[in-house]
Formats: sequence, C-alpha cells, structure tokens
Amino acid sequence: MKILVTGGVRSGKSRHAESLLDGPVTYVAPGPVRDDVDWQARIEAHRARRPGSWTTLETGDLAAALRTDGPVLVDCLGTWLTRLVDDAGLWEAPAPAVTSYVGARTAEAVAALGDDVVLVTNEVGLGVVPEHRSGRLFRDLLGTVNQEFGAACDEVHLVVAGRVLRL
Amino acid sequence: MKILVTGGVRSGKSRHAESLLDGPVTYVAPGPVRDDVDWQARIEAHRARRPGSWTTLETGDLAAALRTDGPVLVDCLGTWLTRLVDDAGLWEAPAPAVTSYVGARTAEAVAALGDDVVLVTNEVGLGVVPEHRSGRLFRDLLGTVNQEFGAACDEVHLVVAGRVLRL
Amino acid sequence: MKILVTGGVRSGKSRHAESLLDGPVTYVAPGPVRDDVDWQARIEAHRARRPGSWTTLETGDLAAALRTDGPVLVDCLGTWLTRLVDDAGLWEAPAPAVTSYVGARTAEAVAALGDDVVLVTNEVGLGVVPEHRSGRLFRDLLGTVNQEFGAACDEVHLVVAGRVLRL
Repeated sequence: MKILVTGGVRSGKSRHAESLLDGPVTYVAPGPVRDDVDWQARIEAHRARRPGSWTTLETGDLAAALRTDGPVLVDCLGTWLTRLVDDAGLWEAPAPAVTSYVGARTAEAVAALGDDVVLVTNEVGLGVVPEHRSGRLFRDLLGTVNQEFGAACDEVHLVVAGRVLRL
Repeated sequence: MKILVTGGVRSGKSRHAESLLDGPVTYVAPGPVRDDVDWQARIEAHRARRPGSWTTLETGDLAAALRTDGPVLVDCLGTWLTRLVDDAGLWEAPAPAVTSYVGARTAEAVAALGDDVVLVTNEVGLGVVPEHRSGRLFRDLLGTVNQEFGAACDEVHLVVAGRVLRL
Repeated sequence: MKILVTGGVRSGKSRHAESLLDGPVTYVAPGPVRDDVDWQARIEAHRARRPGSWTTLETGDLAAALRTDGPVLVDCLGTWLTRLVDDAGLWEAPAPAVTSYVGARTAEAVAALGDDVVLVTNEVGLGVVPEHRSGRLFRDLLGTVNQEFGAACDEVHLVVAGRVLRL
C-alpha cells in the first residue's frame, strides 16, 4: 500500500504515519540538517517514539531512498522540497525553471515508489498569500508535489487535531 | 447543480472544477488583470487545459456573468473579492463598511446563481493571523463569502492533494 | 457528549458550535480582553446570536470554567492559549518551557471536561511557516492543544465554508 499522509503542523501526521507500518522500517529524513534548538527538540521527540528496530536514513536523494527494500516511511516531503531547492540554489530562479527542476525530481521519486511506503507531507496552501516570494514559490511547489504523490498513492489521509480522514 | 469547490493553492481545485461541467461552458475569470510572469504562466496553463468550445469572460461583474445561459464556471471567488475591494478602493476602509459593501455584492451574485454552475474558491483562513490588516481583512471577507455561496450551493467539495471530499 | 469544533476563520465554526447545545448554556470566553473596533464588532455579532438564557463567563481559568454545571460552550481555545502565554509572560521563553507550561494547563483543562461540552478551536497550521517566532510558537502550541482536546472528545467536527465534516 502507498499512502500519502497530509495535514497541518502538530496535527498528529507523523504519529499516524508511524502507526501504518510494521517490521524493519526504513525511516527516511530527507530534509536539510538544521542545528537550532527548537528543531532538535522536535527531531528527538520523533526519534524517541520510533521502535529501535527502525533504520534511519538521512538523505536528500529521495528516489534512491524509496528503492530501499522493505517498508519505507518518508517524513516529510516539505523538508525534502526545501533541501532540493536549497541544494540547487534555485530560490531566486524564475518560477518555470524551478518548477521544471522540481517536477523532474518529483517524477523520479514517484517512479521509485515501492509497494509498502508511507509519505508524510504538509498542507501549506490554506493561508493568505505569503509576504515573500520564497514563501509563495514554496507553497505552489509543494501543492504540485502533493498532487503528484497523491495521484500515485492508493490513499491520501488528512490528519486534523489527531483525527484521520481518508480521502 | 450548484457546486462550490474549495481548497488550498495548487491543490487541484481548478482541474476538478473543470471536470464537473459539460457542453458550451462559459468560463468566468472575475479577478484583476495582472501582468507578472508567474501569473501569466498560471493563466496559460489553465487556458490550455480547457476545451476550445468554452467561452472565456473576463469581468468583475459576477452577478451579470452568472446570468449567462448554459453552464458557468467561475474561477475564482478569491480573485473576484480582490478586484471588488480594489475597484471600490476599500482596503483602508473601516471593516463594517467594506464588510457591508462585499455582503451586498455577494448577495447579488448569490441571487443570480443559475442551475448549472461551479464556483472555485480558496481556503485562506487556516494559517496564523496575517501580519497586515489587508491580509486579515481579506481572509475574514473571503471566509464570509465562502459561507454565503456554500449555503446557496447544493454541494461543497474540498480538494486536498488532488483528492476530492464532498462535504 | 464532548465535541471539538475546528476550522478556519469565518468558516461558521461558532455558529455550528452554538447549534449543538440546548438549555442553560454557560458560554465561556477565555481569551484576552481586546478593545479594538474590529474585535468588538465580532464579539457583538456573536453575542446577538446567542439566546438570552445563556450565561457568559469571561475568564482565563479554563479548568474552573469547565467544572460549571450544565452544558458549556468554550469559544475558543486559540484565544485561551493566547491569554495563557500572555499572562505567564512566556512568548520569549525557550520552546520547551512554554510547551511544558501549556501542556500542564491543557492537562488540567482536559481533566475538567464535563459530559456536555463543546469547544471551538482554530486550525492555524495549514499555511507557510510564519515570519515571526511568536507565530511559529503559537501554531505549534495550538496544534498540540488541539490534539490533546481532540483525543479527549467524542467527536471532532471540521467546518469548511459553513459545512460540517465529522472526523
């Protein structure tokens, strides 16, 4: 089963996603490495919740990570997208160039989806237009990324206040 | 059937809305004319997806557009609201004045709804309080506009990651 | 029945919540007292809609308010959280300190939930990352508060464009 889990921050998405997989799960953290205190606290809270038998893979190469044997949990597509645009230095590029680049990487990752995979993502397009172009670009890109993975998955789960809605 | 289609940016709302109508559809673009590159690219992508038999009507007079014979697709109420407040020069007006003005125009448009109409809108009220008063005003106004059209429609569809939820 | 009602601004949450209770309802307004015009207009609109038999309780002590006999309506957890952090002067505190403080107050309130209570809250975690730390902190805290109350309630209702989805 391929499942995309979406929702807002602190909605219970990660916890729900972790409950969907059994066995020797490969946990993929595809985002940029950050060193601020708030972030480290969040990472530790996630890590403490995961079974000791899980393997953690910190990598921006999502397509390669998805080709791992066995169940795979990706948390999350939002941080992956951030790292992707960071590493390619495309935050200031024209929208068509970055859209095309992200579209190609997304297609590679979607093609690499195995049969037992859960992907966590964020909904970020439900507020007013962001002040900064990078914010507007990010929410447009992530909306499209979510649509692509959503179309490739068997189920999309929306998590609100800890409750799960299967779309 | 009267249907309101809502969701976040790049959620797949427009695509879903376009799939709901057949025949000689009048496509109503009620927003302000913008000339930036990102916007033009988005408009073109929308246009390329629509059948050649559709008629496009670019107008801020939503009530008149809704009285057109045959199926009507409005995309979207968020840009209509922006143009409405722009044209009336009300962004700096006291909230009761602009609320009253928008309420009257909304009531006119709701009264003009035909039997075969799909309206696309945005959900913008699910983030933190915006920095600027115009952002706060916009999300309050659009929330109320959405409620009014939602109450007048037979169905409200929420689109998330390309999946459709009928409310 | 314990029900948590969530949704965006101006989605129709309060109106829906008010329709869920009968009899001598205690209406709890747990937020900070504000004196700006837009806010007062909103408060008055809410007040005018409520039956005259209802009792209004303006207090930040949510746990005590929840121990009131008879049906209780709390509107809303977002303003309660704002007042909680305001009164404790914790907006600039390290995240673990404020998270711990809010967690303890939330646990007290959850433990005080009666059998006939409706709580209104906001979804604020579905936009891009807020500019300011206080915005990021608020949405993280409210997400967790919503999860805690959601877990303790019998039902969670999501309101979108005036339509209600039972999760």
